[in-house]
Amino acid sequence: SSDSTPIRATLFPGDGIGPEIAESVKQVFREAEVPIEWEEHYVGDQIDPRTQSFLTWESLESVRKNRVGLKGPMATPIGKGHRSLNLTLRKELNLYANVRPCYSLPGYKTRYDDVNLITIRENTEGEYSGLEHQVVRGVVESLKIITRQASLRVAEYAFHYAKTHGRERVSAIHKANIMQKTDGLFLKCCREVAEKYPDIKYEEVVIDNCCMMLVKNPALFDVLVMPNLYGDIISDLCAGLIGGLGLTPSCNIGEGGIALAEAVHGSAPDIAGKNLANPTALLLSSLTMLRHLELHDKADRIQNAILSTMSQGKFRTADLGGASSTSDYTMAICDHL
Amino acid sequence: SSDSTPIRATLFPGDGIGPEIAESVKQVFREAEVPIEWEEHYVGDQIDPRTQSFLTWESLESVRKNRVGLKGPMATPIGKGHRSLNLTLRKELNLYANVRPCYSLPGYKTRYDDVNLITIRENTEGEYSGLEHQVVRGVVESLKIITRQASLRVAEYAFHYAKTHGRERVSAIHKANIMQKTDGLFLKCCREVAEKYPDIKYEEVVIDNCCMMLVKNPALFDVLVMPNLYGDIISDLCAGLIGGLGLTPSCNIGEGGIALAEAVHGSAPDIAGKNLANPTALLLSSLTMLRHLELHDKADRIQNAILSTMSQGKFRTADLGGASSTSDYTMAICDHL
Ligand SMILES: CC(C)[C@H](C(=O)O)[C@@H](O)C(=O)O
Ligand SMILES: CC(C)[C@H](C(=O)O)[C@@H](O)C(=O)O
Repeated sequence: SSDSTPIRATLFPGDGIGPEIAESVKQVFREAEVPIEWEEHYVGDQIDPRTQSFLTWESLESVRKNRVGLKGPMATPIGKGHRSLNLTLRKELNLYANVRPCYSLPGYKTRYDDVNLITIRENTEGEYSGLEHQVVRGVVESLKIITRQASLRVAEYAFHYAKTHGRERVSAIHKANIMQKTDGLFLKCCREVAEKYPDIKYEEVVIDNCCMMLVKNPALFDVLVMPNLYGDIISDLCAGLIGGLGLTPSCNIGEGGIALAEAVHGSAPDIAGKNLANPTALLLSSLTMLRHLELHDKADRIQNAILSTMSQGKFRTADLGGASSTSDYTMAICDHL
Repeated sequence: SSDSTPIRATLFPGDGIGPEIAESVKQVFREAEVPIEWEEHYVGDQIDPRTQSFLTWESLESVRKNRVGLKGPMATPIGKGHRSLNLTLRKELNLYANVRPCYSLPGYKTRYDDVNLITIRENTEGEYSGLEHQVVRGVVESLKIITRQASLRVAEYAFHYAKTHGRERVSAIHKANIMQKTDGLFLKCCREVAEKYPDIKYEEVVIDNCCMMLVKNPALFDVLVMPNLYGDIISDLCAGLIGGLGLTPSCNIGEGGIALAEAVHGSAPDIAGKNLANPTALLLSSLTMLRHLELHDKADRIQNAILSTMSQGKFRTADLGGASSTSDYTMAICDHL
């Protein structure tokens, strides 16, 4: 798309605090003159038979067409025999990699100030196969499925990411000493891809040891790539190192170049509509979308404005111990732009 | 056993630094007049057909008879088509729970100074079933098995432990939102046992969230109980919080009241025989054995001597940045007794 034609992107404001924090992103994007035109979609109030969930078919079509999107928190309505909204999105859009750039934020002190790593999680298979059954009474089993295709795809994404983002090393996380066939296949695929990237260092780290090293010295890691469940665990662990899900950006990569950025925290219904929510995770997530579109200048500018506002510490929302409203914090970011 | 008859306990000094650190425990026990008589067993140099591993049948018989033992690090010889020594011990002795008291050590500073929790890991099934196969080329699967029997057994141990050790709360760690049948059964068993312990609080925490909370605020946790792989991951994560495997005690509980304490760190062949090894993990592990035998006075005395020596900071081995020898550190502990 040329510089003058805006890029269309799907926006799922989501539930609870979603609309407020989405508003914050829209405002910051306007201020920074990001050439994006939003196509907004809300979660439906009844099950769409074509998606078997509360997500409308139109909203999925919108992402498929635009190939980029941003998603706020979505609370799956409980107890109605349908699929979780997040899992449905992953499945329907074939979002095969979840990518989380995880870096210490100036202005929000945790026990760690030296985190700067990327977790890349395979997002479609592994322990999430949904294949489970009772063998006999009192004995149940779950199947973990690893395929060559999905493993190569996520490994390829990880190395490509490392190369295009100036990263030096990819660590494949596994438990192949116990699951020799499944995690063994995952490692084999990573090794094959590693061969094609001689400039990127490659290592393999057992998951238990990885978690121990992460809490001792996260600076040891650069890009981590791993099967689904390990990614689920490690990406949240890493979020904890920098302060939690309210500060952690996330982006899902799908087949055909789809990028759906998302805030992975909850919808916080208790504070919804009160102008108290922290939009940081959604803002930082929106940057991953911009970078996916190679709008690095815009992303850098907005990132600097967010980080400066945070360092200054004057406008801090309640979850971070401050008293600022969502809109004041957003205005402060706009002022920094 | 009466006060005058010594209790027989099996000792596997293990490989590499094993014999040196085992010597350290023997010395400290002598100094503290612990009424234990060691029955020493080494790993064999050929496969014993009765155990299908380098562990001798006699050594396993010794643990079965004595019901208590202490184990140093064992390096499984590589590439000979036999079972790992650690896994063989778990299988043969039916060591169904791995228990790790994890507490911040005075005198060894990490980013955390408020850790005081117990991880209890189911040690026999789950992802460690060894059942894996290729479905078609490029598609492999591993089976995770959860049984009612093993889940009840470890849950029962966890609540019993909490009750007898003055602990207030048991948290069951799971991913039942994804693995509803397997982790769901595990939770169901924990709930059943929880009913029998109305004085112990019970909660359920999803593993990804648990890891995030652990790195943010480990003081939130008391006793954690979980299926095999989550236990593998979380017990090492927690070890990382207090400084690593070189400082973390561990004990395996088997059917019929067996307790096999063990240092879970490696055998460090590079420094073996040089009087440089850190015996702390094995010493702290030996305390879990004493507590299992209800020799709490002895355990308390030795624990205080170790902690005082560590706080003093004068005798610190190389792995902790000091220059003390194994034997000087051991002597210092004996002096504190
Ligand atoms: C809610 C749950 C199903 C989900 C997952 O396990 O993938 C969540 O933890 C996540 O990481 O997005
Ligand atoms: C070496 C490995 C098989 C073992 C395990 O995964 O159980 C280790 O990590 C442990 O925790 O004892």
